[in-house]
Amino acid sequence: MTSRFFSFTGGTSGQWVVKSIRPVVGETLEPAERLSIVQGESPAGDMAGASASWRLRGITSNERYINASEKVNLVAEQSGLGRPEATCGALIPIRKSAKWWTLSQDERRAIFEERSHHLQIGMRFLPAIARRLHHCRDLSEHEPFDFLTWFDYAPEHAGAFEDLVMKLRETEEWKYVDREVDVRVVRAG
Amino acid sequence: MTSRFFSFTGGTSGQWVVKSIRPVVGETLEPAERLSIVQGESPAGDMAGASASWRLRGITSNERYINASEKVNLVAEQSGLGRPEATCGALIPIRKSAKWWTLSQDERRAIFEERSHHLQIGMRFLPAIARRLHHCRDLSEHEPFDFLTWFDYAPEHAGAFEDLVMKLRETEEWKYVDREVDVRVVRAG
Repeated sequence: MTSRFFSFTGGTSGQWVVKSIRPVVGETLEPAERLSIVQGESPAGDMAGASASWRLRGITSNERYINASEKVNLVAEQSGLGRPEATCGALIPIRKSAKWWTLSQDERRAIFEERSHHLQIGMRFLPAIARRLHHCRDLSEHEPFDFLTWFDYAPEHAGAFEDLVMKLRETEEWKYVDREVDVRVVRAG
Repeated sequence: MTSRFFSFTGGTSGQWVVKSIRPVVGETLEPAERLSIVQGESPAGDMAGASASWRLRGITSNERYINASEKVNLVAEQSGLGRPEATCGALIPIRKSAKWWTLSQDERRAIFEERSHHLQIGMRFLPAIARRLHHCRDLSEHEPFDFLTWFDYAPEHAGAFEDLVMKLRETEEWKYVDREVDVRVVRAG
């Protein structure tokens, strides 16, 4: 069975060279030279030990907002992570406010799609930009973020990626984001 | 901050005397004399040790299906757990099938409420029966159940409680339940 669990470790080892770590809202993450991405649960001692600046954990899960017809379109358009040409990566951890989490399902869906067009914006950048969403909020009650999104894309789509994150940050949904860090990486040569 | 994390331990200690442990679908849980309910994360070694038959963990989270008007009604009608007269309890852990989890949000909502009337059925038994839902599926990928629901009620509402669980088990939603155990307890005198 393929593991749903992923850990992202910022430190001195890993397949990805860190180019920048930038706080968008709230507290940043400590500097790191490399980013290591590991699939599967592993003992805490298994991380790069003293050399790690931080470690974020997340689990892939069922979709929370998209409807059946949107899912058909998404599945048809999206590409998988790890394409040889996708040498640029971005890890964007976000946390949403308590106010977001007390909204009802229909209120969150309305903000997410009907008013912020989160999915519709993301769809415009397919298949160039691949992504995987990891949930953290229900892993424990001490997680520093609610979601980790990992993206990869070819260098020629770097401008499109900036456009994507800029458009999402302008939405009503993003008013509920109270912590966001933007970690950019390139694949180690 | 009030903890969202709860553990339910079946063993030889705890505030609740186990009356029955019955498999409804799939594998049962081991016999136990007592049920202990602890709020907050605690080291694994902190459980009743060798005397524990099983330990289930869950975390309360945001609602996944109810809409804003349903939430207003629910909040107005529901009662809190732990009323002095609520000396009967039930712990009902369930797991849903892979098929359920691959449905889109609108498909799951339609099954949950428009076709199974899960919330509407539950509302009929308020405020007599109090409940708290705990999510387990995204705590790790090795959890034996997806949800734990804990109920308490006064002995005079025991018949109503049987009626509630029977009605839910007849719904279309329950066709997606592939493991369910029904643990009944009474408060230790």
